[in-house]
Amino acid sequence: MSLKLGVIGTGAIGQDHARRCSQTLLNSQVVALIDINPASATNVARQLGLQAEIHADGHALIAAADVDAVLVTCWGPSHEEFVLAAIAAGKPVFCEKPLAVTAEGCRRIVEAEIAHGKRLVQVGFMRPYDQGYRALKAVIDSGRIGEPLMLHCAHRNPTVGSNYSTDMAITDTLIHELDVLRWLIGDDYRSVQVIFPRRTSRASEQLRDPQIVLLETVKGVRIDVEIFVNCQYGYDIQCEVVGETGIARLPEPSQVQLRSQASLSTQILTDWKDRFIGAYDVELQAFIDGVRTGKVGGPSAWDGYAAAVAADACIAAQRSGAIEVLDLPPRPAFYD
Amino acid sequence: MSLKLGVIGTGAIGQDHARRCSQTLLNSQVVALIDINPASATNVARQLGLQAEIHADGHALIAAADVDAVLVTCWGPSHEEFVLAAIAAGKPVFCEKPLAVTAEGCRRIVEAEIAHGKRLVQVGFMRPYDQGYRALKAVIDSGRIGEPLMLHCAHRNPTVGSNYSTDMAITDTLIHELDVLRWLIGDDYRSVQVIFPRRTSRASEQLRDPQIVLLETVKGVRIDVEIFVNCQYGYDIQCEVVGETGIARLPEPSQVQLRSQASLSTQILTDWKDRFIGAYDVELQAFIDGVRTGKVGGPSAWDGYAAAVAADACIAAQRSGAIEVLDLPPRPAFYD
Amino acid sequence: MSLKLGVIGTGAIGQDHARRCSQTLLNSQVVALIDINPASATNVARQLGLQAEIHADGHALIAAADVDAVLVTCWGPSHEEFVLAAIAAGKPVFCEKPLAVTAEGCRRIVEAEIAHGKRLVQVGFMRPYDQGYRALKAVIDSGRIGEPLMLHCAHRNPTVGSNYSTDMAITDTLIHELDVLRWLIGDDYRSVQVIFPRRTSRASEQLRDPQIVLLETVKGVRIDVEIFVNCQYGYDIQCEVVGETGIARLPEPSQVQLRSQASLSTQILTDWKDRFIGAYDVELQAFIDGVRTGKVGGPSAWDGYAAAVAADACIAAQRSGAIEVLDLPPRPAFYD
Amino acid sequence: MSLKLGVIGTGAIGQDHARRCSQTLLNSQVVALIDINPASATNVARQLGLQAEIHADGHALIAAADVDAVLVTCWGPSHEEFVLAAIAAGKPVFCEKPLAVTAEGCRRIVEAEIAHGKRLVQVGFMRPYDQGYRALKAVIDSGRIGEPLMLHCAHRNPTVGSNYSTDMAITDTLIHELDVLRWLIGDDYRSVQVIFPRRTSRASEQLRDPQIVLLETVKGVRIDVEIFVNCQYGYDIQCEVVGETGIARLPEPSQVQLRSQASLSTQILTDWKDRFIGAYDVELQAFIDGVRTGKVGGPSAWDGYAAAVAADACIAAQRSGAIEVLDLPPRPAFYD
Repeated sequence: MSLKLGVIGTGAIGQDHARRCSQTLLNSQVVALIDINPASATNVARQLGLQAEIHADGHALIAAADVDAVLVTCWGPSHEEFVLAAIAAGKPVFCEKPLAVTAEGCRRIVEAEIAHGKRLVQVGFMRPYDQGYRALKAVIDSGRIGEPLMLHCAHRNPTVGSNYSTDMAITDTLIHELDVLRWLIGDDYRSVQVIFPRRTSRASEQLRDPQIVLLETVKGVRIDVEIFVNCQYGYDIQCEVVGETGIARLPEPSQVQLRSQASLSTQILTDWKDRFIGAYDVELQAFIDGVRTGKVGGPSAWDGYAAAVAADACIAAQRSGAIEVLDLPPRPAFYD
Repeated sequence: MSLKLGVIGTGAIGQDHARRCSQTLLNSQVVALIDINPASATNVARQLGLQAEIHADGHALIAAADVDAVLVTCWGPSHEEFVLAAIAAGKPVFCEKPLAVTAEGCRRIVEAEIAHGKRLVQVGFMRPYDQGYRALKAVIDSGRIGEPLMLHCAHRNPTVGSNYSTDMAITDTLIHELDVLRWLIGDDYRSVQVIFPRRTSRASEQLRDPQIVLLETVKGVRIDVEIFVNCQYGYDIQCEVVGETGIARLPEPSQVQLRSQASLSTQILTDWKDRFIGAYDVELQAFIDGVRTGKVGGPSAWDGYAAAVAADACIAAQRSGAIEVLDLPPRPAFYD
Repeated sequence: MSLKLGVIGTGAIGQDHARRCSQTLLNSQVVALIDINPASATNVARQLGLQAEIHADGHALIAAADVDAVLVTCWGPSHEEFVLAAIAAGKPVFCEKPLAVTAEGCRRIVEAEIAHGKRLVQVGFMRPYDQGYRALKAVIDSGRIGEPLMLHCAHRNPTVGSNYSTDMAITDTLIHELDVLRWLIGDDYRSVQVIFPRRTSRASEQLRDPQIVLLETVKGVRIDVEIFVNCQYGYDIQCEVVGETGIARLPEPSQVQLRSQASLSTQILTDWKDRFIGAYDVELQAFIDGVRTGKVGGPSAWDGYAAAVAADACIAAQRSGAIEVLDLPPRPAFYD
Repeated sequence: MSLKLGVIGTGAIGQDHARRCSQTLLNSQVVALIDINPASATNVARQLGLQAEIHADGHALIAAADVDAVLVTCWGPSHEEFVLAAIAAGKPVFCEKPLAVTAEGCRRIVEAEIAHGKRLVQVGFMRPYDQGYRALKAVIDSGRIGEPLMLHCAHRNPTVGSNYSTDMAITDTLIHELDVLRWLIGDDYRSVQVIFPRRTSRASEQLRDPQIVLLETVKGVRIDVEIFVNCQYGYDIQCEVVGETGIARLPEPSQVQLRSQASLSTQILTDWKDRFIGAYDVELQAFIDGVRTGKVGGPSAWDGYAAAVAADACIAAQRSGAIEVLDLPPRPAFYD
C-alpha cells in the first residue's frame, strides 16, 4: 500500500518533492495539494498527472481522511503552524527547513511532539543522506582517525542574487552545516564567533562576503566554516575532519579526469541542485519508509530546534563581533 | 499500472533481480518464477514476500497470461531457448549475459527479433548504465578531446577461484569491455590479438594471468585492455580515451580522502558487486520503463551478437597468438 | 673567487650549513669556525675536510681578515650579539632564525643595518626558497585567483619531544608561517587571536595541542593556521589561498602513486628535514650569490623583526585568549 | 681541484652543457671548445665568460694536455669517432645520445672500452637521474608491488615540426624509454611489435602519429608505450608498473592545485625542457664526480648499445608490421 501524501505549498521545492513522491520514489503517491496561489497547485497536479485534490487551505488538507502524511513546503513563516497542526492531527509530517522561523517556534513543535508521545516530524535537512557525508561519518565512527579535534569546512556558491543579505549567510547557507556537522560528530555547539575577512569586490554592497564562522562544541571540538557565496568558480562544499591520528575529507563528486590544454582537471559543479540531488531522493524515501514502518527518523524536530538556536547565536555573533554562547537545553530523552 | 514480470532462474543474479524489481524499482512486480530447482523458486518467493506463481517450466511462465515481460537469469546454455520463446510469444525479455553461448545462437535471436518486427530484447550489460561511463561518453561526445584514437583499459580483480580458466578471462571478464567500449565510442571491432605477459605467481596453474587484449576498430582506433584477475590489491576498472586533442579518464569511485599513517589515500573497492551496483538498478529500471512506454532500448540483441563474435575472435587469438579478424556482418538497419 | 665564510656555532644546523657551503654549493668555502665547545668545531672541520681556522671566539672570527661573510648558527640568545658585530665590521651575515630572541633585539639590528647604509643581513627563513611556495606565489601574482581574501594553513608534525611547550608552537613552529605568509601575499599582520581546540590525548601534559592561530592582515585578509604537532600521521604543510575568483593550493610533494592493498595512495613525509631540504640549498646559495654580487636579498632584518613582533603578539594571544593587536611600525624605505 | 672539460660541439645542447659545467655544477670548468663552425665556439666562450681554448678540431681538443675529460655534443654521425678517440687517449667521455648512429658503431665503442680495461664512457640518458623515476625504481626495488609483470607508458609531445618522420618516433622519442625502462626494471628486451592506431589529423602527412610500441622482455614483462607527438595538450610522460601485488606510477610533476572556472586543476607542462631540467644537472654532476673519484658510472656504452639494438628492432617492426626479435648478445661481465 503506497503512502498517501498531501503537499502544502507548490513552489519550487514543493513541486520538486511532489514529482519525487509521485514519480521517482517507491510506495508513495500525492493525493492532495494546496498553495496560497490555487492556480499553482492546479498546474502542478496537471503537469505531474496527479489524481490529487486541491484543497482550500492547509488545515483542510491535513484533516483530509485520505492524507496519511504531510509535506510542508510552503514559505517559512507558515511552517510552524502546519507542522503543529499535523502533530495535532497525529499525522507524520516532513517539513522543509526551517522547521520554524524562530527557535521558540521550533521549541513549541518539540514540545507538541513530545506531548504527542511519538516522533512524527522529519526536518528537510538532506546532507545526512548524502553518500559522501555518510562515507565520511563511517570513517569517523570506525575510529580510523581517532577522536575528532577540529573541522575545517567551506560552503561556496559561485554567486548569489542581490537580495541575499549578510544574515542569510547563516539562515540560508550555513544552516546546512549547522545541521550536518552536529550529526557528523555527534556533538553540540557551545559557542560561536564570526569574523569577516576582506570583502570580495564581487559581492553586492550590502553583503559581507566571505565570512568565517568559528564554532566550539561541547566536547571542545573547533569548527571553522568559510562561507563564500560569490566565489565565482563553482558550488563547492568542503569538510575536513582532523582527528587525533588522521584526517578524513569529504569526497569530491566523482568526475571524469581530463588532460587538455595544458591542464589536468576535473569539473567542479556550479549548480547546488546537482550537488545533493541524490540526497533529496534518499531523504524523502527515508521519510516514506519511516512512516510506513511506524518509525519516523532522520533529522528530528529537536535537530531543527538545535539548528535554530545555533543560527540565532551565529547571527548575534555577526552583529556583536564577540563570542556568543549557545543556550541549548539538554536533549530530552525522547529524542535519544 | 506496474509491469508484471516473470523470472526464469532464481540463482544469485535471478534472486537479486527479483528483489530489485519487487522492492527497489518503480512500476514493476514479480508475478511468476521458475527455477530448475523448484525449491529455490519457492524460497525466493517466500523470502521476498512475493505473490508469485511458481511455474513448472520456463515456457509455461512465458505463456502465462499475467506475465507482461520476462527476465532470463538461468544458466547460460538455456538463454537462447527462452529468449526465442519470449520473442515467439511477443513478450519483451531482459536476458542476462550471455545472450546465447554461441555467436550463432545470438544470430538466431537477432533474426527472430527482426522477423517479429519490433525490439523486444534487452541484454544485461550494465556498464552503459554506470554513471562514470555515461559521464565519460558525454565528454567524448562533446568533442572536448577530439576524435578518439586509442583506449587504454584495465579490468582487475583481486583474485578468482581455482576453476577460472584462461578463456573465462574473455567470456566472463573482458565481455564487459567488449560491450561497453563499442557503445562508448560508437565503433565496431575489426581485429584482435592477445598477448600474455609474464605470469603472476598468484594465479592457479592452469591460468594465464594477466593477459593483454589488443583490439582494432573499424575506424582504426586501437584499444588495449589489461585483464588481471589475481591483482591482489582490488577490483579496479580503468578506461582512458586518448583523443586528438585531449584525454578523458573514467572517474574513480568517489571515496573519502584519508591522511593517516604517512599516507594520503582513498580506498579501492575489492568486491565487483560494489562497483556497478547502482548500474544494475538503472539498467533494469530502463527495461521496465522501456516496456511500459513501448520502446525497449539499451544493449540490443545485435549488441549481444557483436559481443559474442568479438569474444569468439578473442578466444581464437588466445589460442593462435595471431591477429584474428572479426567476421561481423553490417548492422541491420533494424538496430539503428 | 669563492666566498670565504666563517661559521659561528657548529651544532646540528651549523654543521649542516658548513657542509652545504663547502661541498654542495657553488663559489663558497668555509675558512673559519667557532663553537662554544671547541672540540665540536674541530670535529666538524675534520669530518668535512675543511682547511679552516678554529677561532677562540665569535668576535675574533668576525674580525678575521680572511672571513668575507659570517653564518650565525649558534644558540638563539647569542644571535643578536654576533649579527651586530658583523654589521659593525661591515661583513654580510646570514643568521639562522630567530634573528634575536626579542623583538627589541631585532629592532636594534634593523637600526644598526640602516645606520650602516646597506643590507648585510639575511635571515634563515627557507620557505620563500621552496619551489612549492614559489609556484604558489607565482599563481597569486599572476592574478589568476584574484585578490587574496583568506588563507587556510596547517603545520603538522607527527610528534614532538616532551620538552616542547605551548609557546614553542609559536616560536619554533608557527614562526615559519609568520614569515612566509607575509612574503606570499605581500601584506602585514594587524591582529591575532589564538583558540585551543580539544586537546589531543597524544600530547604531553603541559602542552596545548592542537592550536589554531587566527591572523588578520592590514588589507583585511584572514589567515587561519592549524598547528598540530602530535598529529601522528606525518609532517604535513598545507596552505590554501582563497582569492576573489579562485583558490590556489600549495603543491603536495611529488610522490609515486601506489595501488596496493585496497588503497590508492601517495606517501606523506614524516621528517621535516625532507620537506624543505632543497630550500636550504637555494637559500644559502642565494646568500652567497647575493654577497658576491653586492646585493644581499631574501628575508631581511626587517622581516626578522616583523616575525618577532608577530610571534610576541601570538604568545600574548595564547595567554590572554583575546584579540591582540600588533605594534609594527611602518617599514622603513630602506627595506623597499 | 676542478675537472677540466673539453666540449666538442657547441650547438644547443653543447652550449647548455658548457653553461652547466662552468656555472651550475661543482668542481668542473670548461677549458676547451670546438665546433664545426668556429664562430659558434668563440661565441659560446665569450657569452659564458670562459677562459677556454678554441681548438681546430675534436682530435686536437681530446689530445690537449689540460683537458681531463670530454663532452661529445656534436651531431650524431660524429659521436662514434670522438668517443673512440677519447677512449684511445684514455680520457673519460660523456657522450650525448646517440652513442653512435648504428648499433655496430656502439658495439665498436663497447669493445674499445673493454680493451681499455676500465669504464670511460657515460651516455647522456638523463631519465635515470630524474627524481620521479628514481622514486619509482625505489618502490619497485622495495618489493612493495611484487615482481613487475607489465608496464604501461606514454610519451606525448604537444606538437613536432614538419620534418619529424615516423622513424624519429623511435630514434628521437622512444629512445628515452628504451633506455630508462631497462634500467627501471633491470631487464632486457627480447622482441618488439609496433602498431599504428588511427592517425591524428594534427600530424603532418608523412607521419604516422600516434604509434604503440609493444616490447617483451627476457623475463616476459610486457611493455606498451604510446608515442603521440602531436597530442596538443602537453608534454606528458607516463609510466605505470603493474606488479604481482600492486601498481606504482611515475609521479606527476608537482604543481599548484587550482580551483577556478568550474575546474579543479593542475598544470601540465608543455615544454619538454622543463620536465627533465633537473635531471640534466644531476646527470652531469654524476659524470664529473665519477671522473674525479675514478669511477665513471651511469648509462654505460653497453646501455647505449642495447638502446641502439632495441631502436633498430623497433624500426624494423615499424616497417614489417611483425614481431621483431632483438639480437642482443649477453652483457659482458665488464659491465656488471
